[in-house]
Amino acid sequence: MTRTDYRRTFPILTTKVNGEPLIYLDNAATTQKPQAVIEAISHYYAYDNANVHRGVYTLAARATNQYEAVRDQVAAFIQAPRRDTVFFTRSTTESLNWVAQTYGEQTIQAGDEIVVTALEHHSNLVPWQQLALRKRAQLKVIQLRPNGELDLAAAAEQITAKTKIVAVAQTSNVLGVTTPIRELAQLAHQRGAVIVVDGAQTVAHQPVNVQELDVDFYAFSGHKLYGPTGVGVLYGKLALLQQLTPVQFGGEMISNVTFERTEFAPIPQRFEAGTPDISGVIGLGAALKTIQQLGWPAIQRQENQLTAQLLNGLLNLPGVTVYGPESVAKHGPVVAFNVNGVHPHDIATGLDLAGIEVRAGHHCAQPLMQTLGVAATVRASVAFYNTTAEIDRFLVVLREVKEFFQQ
Amino acid sequence: MTRTDYRRTFPILTTKVNGEPLIYLDNAATTQKPQAVIEAISHYYAYDNANVHRGVYTLAARATNQYEAVRDQVAAFIQAPRRDTVFFTRSTTESLNWVAQTYGEQTIQAGDEIVVTALEHHSNLVPWQQLALRKRAQLKVIQLRPNGELDLAAAAEQITAKTKIVAVAQTSNVLGVTTPIRELAQLAHQRGAVIVVDGAQTVAHQPVNVQELDVDFYAFSGHKLYGPTGVGVLYGKLALLQQLTPVQFGGEMISNVTFERTEFAPIPQRFEAGTPDISGVIGLGAALKTIQQLGWPAIQRQENQLTAQLLNGLLNLPGVTVYGPESVAKHGPVVAFNVNGVHPHDIATGLDLAGIEVRAGHHCAQPLMQTLGVAATVRASVAFYNTTAEIDRFLVVLREVKEFFQQ
Repeated sequence: MTRTDYRRTFPILTTKVNGEPLIYLDNAATTQKPQAVIEAISHYYAYDNANVHRGVYTLAARATNQYEAVRDQVAAFIQAPRRDTVFFTRSTTESLNWVAQTYGEQTIQAGDEIVVTALEHHSNLVPWQQLALRKRAQLKVIQLRPNGELDLAAAAEQITAKTKIVAVAQTSNVLGVTTPIRELAQLAHQRGAVIVVDGAQTVAHQPVNVQELDVDFYAFSGHKLYGPTGVGVLYGKLALLQQLTPVQFGGEMISNVTFERTEFAPIPQRFEAGTPDISGVIGLGAALKTIQQLGWPAIQRQENQLTAQLLNGLLNLPGVTVYGPESVAKHGPVVAFNVNGVHPHDIATGLDLAGIEVRAGHHCAQPLMQTLGVAATVRASVAFYNTTAEIDRFLVVLREVKEFFQQ
Repeated sequence: MTRTDYRRTFPILTTKVNGEPLIYLDNAATTQKPQAVIEAISHYYAYDNANVHRGVYTLAARATNQYEAVRDQVAAFIQAPRRDTVFFTRSTTESLNWVAQTYGEQTIQAGDEIVVTALEHHSNLVPWQQLALRKRAQLKVIQLRPNGELDLAAAAEQITAKTKIVAVAQTSNVLGVTTPIRELAQLAHQRGAVIVVDGAQTVAHQPVNVQELDVDFYAFSGHKLYGPTGVGVLYGKLALLQQLTPVQFGGEMISNVTFERTEFAPIPQRFEAGTPDISGVIGLGAALKTIQQLGWPAIQRQENQLTAQLLNGLLNLPGVTVYGPESVAKHGPVVAFNVNGVHPHDIATGLDLAGIEVRAGHHCAQPLMQTLGVAATVRASVAFYNTTAEIDRFLVVLREVKEFFQQ
C-alpha cells in the first residue's frame, strides 16, 4: 500500500467540515485514526474483552496476550533494551508527572537544581516547577537562540554539578525545532544528572532509539501517534525503574498484601495499578503496526515536503510573522505564526469556515509565548496523510482570511 | 426494547469460546460492551476526533461538547449536585489513590486514624495503608460478622474522634455484600471524619445518590458499567474539591503559567491534567444511556433472579463452600465459593473448557482471603444480560467439573 492508500484508511479525512472537505492541520494536538486502529478497538470489544492479568480463562488470556504483545511492540518501537522497561500510563503528561512524583520526589533535595528549557510544554515544566517549590530546589531554564533553537552553550552553563534532573522536549510543540537530546544527555550525565525527555511531538515523525540517545526516561502518548486517547508510555532505564516505589496502589501491582504491609510486584506491573486502558493499548498496537507497514522513509519524505511548503508559503506571505527557524532542515512538522494585527483566534475561525482546522492559542506553552513576546499564535501541524493540495488550499484561504481582517 | 433485545446488542455474547457458546460470569472484573458503546467510540474517531478544551475550530468544539456532555450525564447518574464535582480519571483505582494523595496527604498527621473494612479490594486498602505508613498514622480495620456482613457495632467502635478518613466499598467484589454507607457516613461525620466510597461493584447494579448517601468522595469505573476501559470517575463534595491542590500538572489544568509559578484552573479542569481518554469518556456516555433506556427495574429484577438462582444452586451442591451471606436479600450479583479439595484454578479451567468464564484467585482482596481462611476462591458474577439458562448450564457443568476432580 502506498502513502495515498494509507490516507484513505482514515475515515475522518473523507468527511466535510462546514460544507468543505476537512483539511486537518492540528496534528500536534492529536492525530486522526486509521480504520485499523478503530477496528482493533471494536474487534477487541466484540470478541476478546476481559480484564487482563487476572483470569485463567480463555478470554482473559486472550486479552492479556494482546495487551502484553503491545508492550513488546512499544519496546521495539523506541528500541528499549527490555520489555519491562516500558509501562503504560494515561498520557505523556502522566508519564512526566510520574517521573517527578517518583524519581524527583525521592531524589531532589533543598538546593538541588532542576533544568528545563524555554520551549517546554506545561506538562514538562509545571511538574518540575512544583517539585522545586516543594523541595526548595532551584528551577533553571535553558534559553533559546533567536531562531528558536536550543542554545547548547547555554545548556552547558545551566547544567552544573548541582543539577539532578534535566527535563527537555525532543521537539517543540510550537516552534517545531528539535533539541539535541544526545548531547544534552551527555552533558547531564557528565554532571551526574538524569535526563527526562518529552517525546510527544517526536515519535510520530522520526525513529527514536532510547539507547542510542542514552536517555534515562522517555515519555510519549498514543493519541499523537495515530492511536487512541487514554494511553501514554513511559520508558525508564532498568536500574532506575527498579529503585523506584510506586505512587498508585491497588489491583495487580502487588505480590502480597496484608492489612499491615504490601510487597509490590516486579516492574512493569508495579507501576500499572488498577485496570489499565486495555482497548487503548490494543489500539496503540494497531497504530504502531500502521507506522511500521508504511515505513519511516515514506512518512518522513512526505512530512518534510509538506513542512517545506508550509514554512516557505508562510514566510513568503507579507504581513505574516513565523516563529522558530526559517530552515526546513531544522524544522519538525509544526509551524507557528501570526498575521500582523489579527488575533490568532480570528485566523483559526476564518480557516475553520473553509474546513481547515488549525490551533490558535498559547499551545500549553505560556512561558514560551512570553519569550516570543506574544499572547498566542496560530499553529499548523502536518502528518504523513496531509497532501500538498491541502497546504496549497490552506495558503490560499489564509491569504483570503488575512485580507478580510486586514481590510 | 426488552432486556433480551438489549442482550442481543452485545456482540461478544453471541460468540463461542472453546467451541461452546460463551457464558460470561466475570462481570465483577469487567462487563461486556453493547454495540452502542463500540459504535460511539468508532463514530467519534471516524467523524469528530480532535483534542478537547483547546481549539476554536469545529471539530475541537464538537469533541469538547461531547466530552463535557458526559460529565453532565455522570453527575446526573449519581445525583451529584453540580457537574463540576465529578472528574474523570483512569479507573476506580486512580480515583481512590487520588483522594489519598490529595485529601489524605494534606490532612493526615501522625497519630491520626484511617479506618477501612475487612472486605476492601487492594485499591481501597493499599493507598490508605501506605499513607498511614508515610504519616505514622494508624490503619484500623472494621471486621465482618460471620456471614460476611459489615458489623456496624464494630464500625461504631473503630471510628473514633481520632479518625480522619473512613474508606469503604459499597459492595464487596468477593462476598457480594453491600455495606450500610449512609450509616457509616453518619458515624464518620459525627466523629469529624470524611468517608471515601469505592462504588466500583455497585454502580452497574443499583441507583446511587451521592447526596442522599452523604458521602464525601465516591469512586467508580466505566468498564464495570458496560463502558470502555481507561475511564474512572471521582465525585467529591464541592467544598472538599475546592480546597485540594492537584497532583498532576500540565495541559489544560492551569489558568496561568510563568517559569516561576502556576495558577491552577477552577475545578474540574484543575484535576484533569493532559489529554484525557476522550473516546473512553464518550463511550461511557453511551453506556450510561443504555442503562437509562433499559431502566433500573429491569436490571435489578433480572440480576436478583440470577443471583438467587446462582446462590441457591451453589448452596444446594454438596461439597461446595459458599462465602458471604446465604440470603439473597443481602447479596449483590457476586458469589464466591470453593469446591472442597479442588483448587479454584482447576474449577475455573474446567468451566472454561465449556465456554463458561469465571474468576479464580484472591480477587485483589488478599486480606479478605486471610479472614476467610483460604488462599483463593472461585467467583461467579452476573450482569443483566445473563440468563437463567446460562446459570442452569453453569451449575450443570460445575457439578461435572467437581465430580471429575473429586473422583
